[in-house]
Amino acid sequence: MASEPAPISFARGAPSLDIVDVDGLRAAADRAFQNDPAGTTAYGTAIGYRPLRAWIADKHGVAPEQVIVTNGSMQADAFLFEALVEAGDVVVVEKPTYDRTLLSLRSRGADVRPIDLHEDGIDVAGVEALIAAGAKPRLAHIIPNFQNPAGYTLSAAKRRALLALAAANGMTIFEDDPYVELRFSGASLPTMLSLDEAGSVVYASSFSKTVCPGIRVGYLVGPEKLIARIAKLATHTYISPNMVAQSIVNEFVRAEDGAAFDRAVARVKGALQERAQALCAALRRELPEARFVEPEGGYFLWVELPEGTDGDALFAAAAERGVQIVKGTDFLLDGGENAFRLAYSGVTVPQIEEGVARLADAVRSLGVTA
Amino acid sequence: MASEPAPISFARGAPSLDIVDVDGLRAAADRAFQNDPAGTTAYGTAIGYRPLRAWIADKHGVAPEQVIVTNGSMQADAFLFEALVEAGDVVVVEKPTYDRTLLSLRSRGADVRPIDLHEDGIDVAGVEALIAAGAKPRLAHIIPNFQNPAGYTLSAAKRRALLALAAANGMTIFEDDPYVELRFSGASLPTMLSLDEAGSVVYASSFSKTVCPGIRVGYLVGPEKLIARIAKLATHTYISPNMVAQSIVNEFVRAEDGAAFDRAVARVKGALQERAQALCAALRRELPEARFVEPEGGYFLWVELPEGTDGDALFAAAAERGVQIVKGTDFLLDGGENAFRLAYSGVTVPQIEEGVARLADAVRSLGVTA
Repeated sequence: MASEPAPISFARGAPSLDIVDVDGLRAAADRAFQNDPAGTTAYGTAIGYRPLRAWIADKHGVAPEQVIVTNGSMQADAFLFEALVEAGDVVVVEKPTYDRTLLSLRSRGADVRPIDLHEDGIDVAGVEALIAAGAKPRLAHIIPNFQNPAGYTLSAAKRRALLALAAANGMTIFEDDPYVELRFSGASLPTMLSLDEAGSVVYASSFSKTVCPGIRVGYLVGPEKLIARIAKLATHTYISPNMVAQSIVNEFVRAEDGAAFDRAVARVKGALQERAQALCAALRRELPEARFVEPEGGYFLWVELPEGTDGDALFAAAAERGVQIVKGTDFLLDGGENAFRLAYSGVTVPQIEEGVARLADAVRSLGVTA
Repeated sequence: MASEPAPISFARGAPSLDIVDVDGLRAAADRAFQNDPAGTTAYGTAIGYRPLRAWIADKHGVAPEQVIVTNGSMQADAFLFEALVEAGDVVVVEKPTYDRTLLSLRSRGADVRPIDLHEDGIDVAGVEALIAAGAKPRLAHIIPNFQNPAGYTLSAAKRRALLALAAANGMTIFEDDPYVELRFSGASLPTMLSLDEAGSVVYASSFSKTVCPGIRVGYLVGPEKLIARIAKLATHTYISPNMVAQSIVNEFVRAEDGAAFDRAVARVKGALQERAQALCAALRRELPEARFVEPEGGYFLWVELPEGTDGDALFAAAAERGVQIVKGTDFLLDGGENAFRLAYSGVTVPQIEEGVARLADAVRSLGVTA
């Protein structure tokens, strides 16, 4: 092996530049300043750029007053947690789950209760058992589609079961859905937001994966009163979110009555599908002992090696070979030593093949497999 | 008087569209996507878009590690207060001061101590007396140039006196300086940041007044360790600020080696000077009993009417005549009933003349003056 192999990163959940529609963004920016110079350049208000808010409301079939557009969906999460979660509140999360959500909830002093994530989503019976044992979860954080880090998708039956549980127990479901548009196989499932009749759901999504991450535009959909409270928090925090960015996104998603946006998303999905398939094929070939579920969309693959694998040693051995992965332990309060997350969104097919070969070499260097 | 007069707002500290360089912004956006598509569209990091951070560091003669670029300077304030201010901490503010700063500090449970603002800035002897009486201010929030709401500017002598006081007492000066570029008469004064030898100053500014508010780009300059702490808070809050917006600002300020930016700012200052002069002339003519200091820059004029004037009644009488002002009481923990703030940044000269005539009519309707 070469002493300084070219770095290959499976670490960051971000798209490679070739699947960002830079020309479409340039054109959208030009139209934003031309079509609405006043709305694009002025302060605006905390609820976001109104034409984009209206587009989002239409998309989800809700009133505009149920939508707030924020500087990325992490900021939306932060506002939501500030509005709903007090120190000591029980919050259900998936096990494993997004590391930044764990950090954010723990820094607020939430009593975080991880519930096992299965191939078809969170173990709803586990949530039920938690409630039966006396816990009163304020919130359940759920990434329903192509979960981060696992890549799994919550089944339709479990979506309905969770909604029933939430309605019966005064629990809010935080449906955190940034990857929903990135389904490249299988049938789409309805959002819990669209199925909700009890007002139990607050929904978050983002344009990071469909437009680009640097545009930092995300949003929340929820009950009107909650959104109004969050708008107050947003006003006190930053007066208004980025109007220039939101006006650009508005032009981007509305171009050609949405046809240009559809083409941009189709291009992203095509590339992701190709990368996911190449990754799974390479893993089957190079690391037959690895267990994983082939994803139907999104950015991530969760890989488990045999029990007893030393994740820290694997991380180091991979890094020595120029390969970045994220340790399974980052997504869990405990456990996950034998697991890791691979993001295939930012790597080309040749990089994937080379990266998995090096990763297999790293695994073999640990003496885990024959 | 007409029953429904056209509304004239002296309320919001925001520029009118005619002094925003929309064409310059369009061109800067185009260059941003063309010159650095990867840096503009990717996540980036919490410290901001590196080329803009470097420009800011150069401007202030500091290392890039002393700078973090944020989603507007209000967000910078929020991070700074989160990093430095605990509940119960004594924080000195100017009296009067920006209403959002008061709100933000009070919501953190700070022990806010307003010190009188004079024509030449905060009463430094008052701060000294506070400390002599045993208070240990953690922070002093100072808007040195064309203060909001008063329009006053801190003298050079007081800048030095404040720095000495801060250094001797372990007090941080938060130099909140969004209007510094908008001086249209008189000589520029050095920032406290540039005079600071003890590391007492954290400096904030923004491109809201020189580029446009909707771009939401602000920044902090301070000691490297503090900036690193704030970068962590920023990472946890939103991963990274808006790269698209910051890349556009970077292109805007660097065009023609800065000459285009200079022209844009000169245009803003020319308009502000014309508006400030028109406002002062109209007030002298229509409301001779009004006391105010003609500003040397910025957006605001602070107007005091004779003691006993009912500010709430004046606000209502002005609103009935289609004129929006901000009550003096909004900028103070107590007092200010006979004062109000006029922003001249968003109104044309004819609007100013008509607006002041209506305002004078409103004052006369209260029976305060002959």
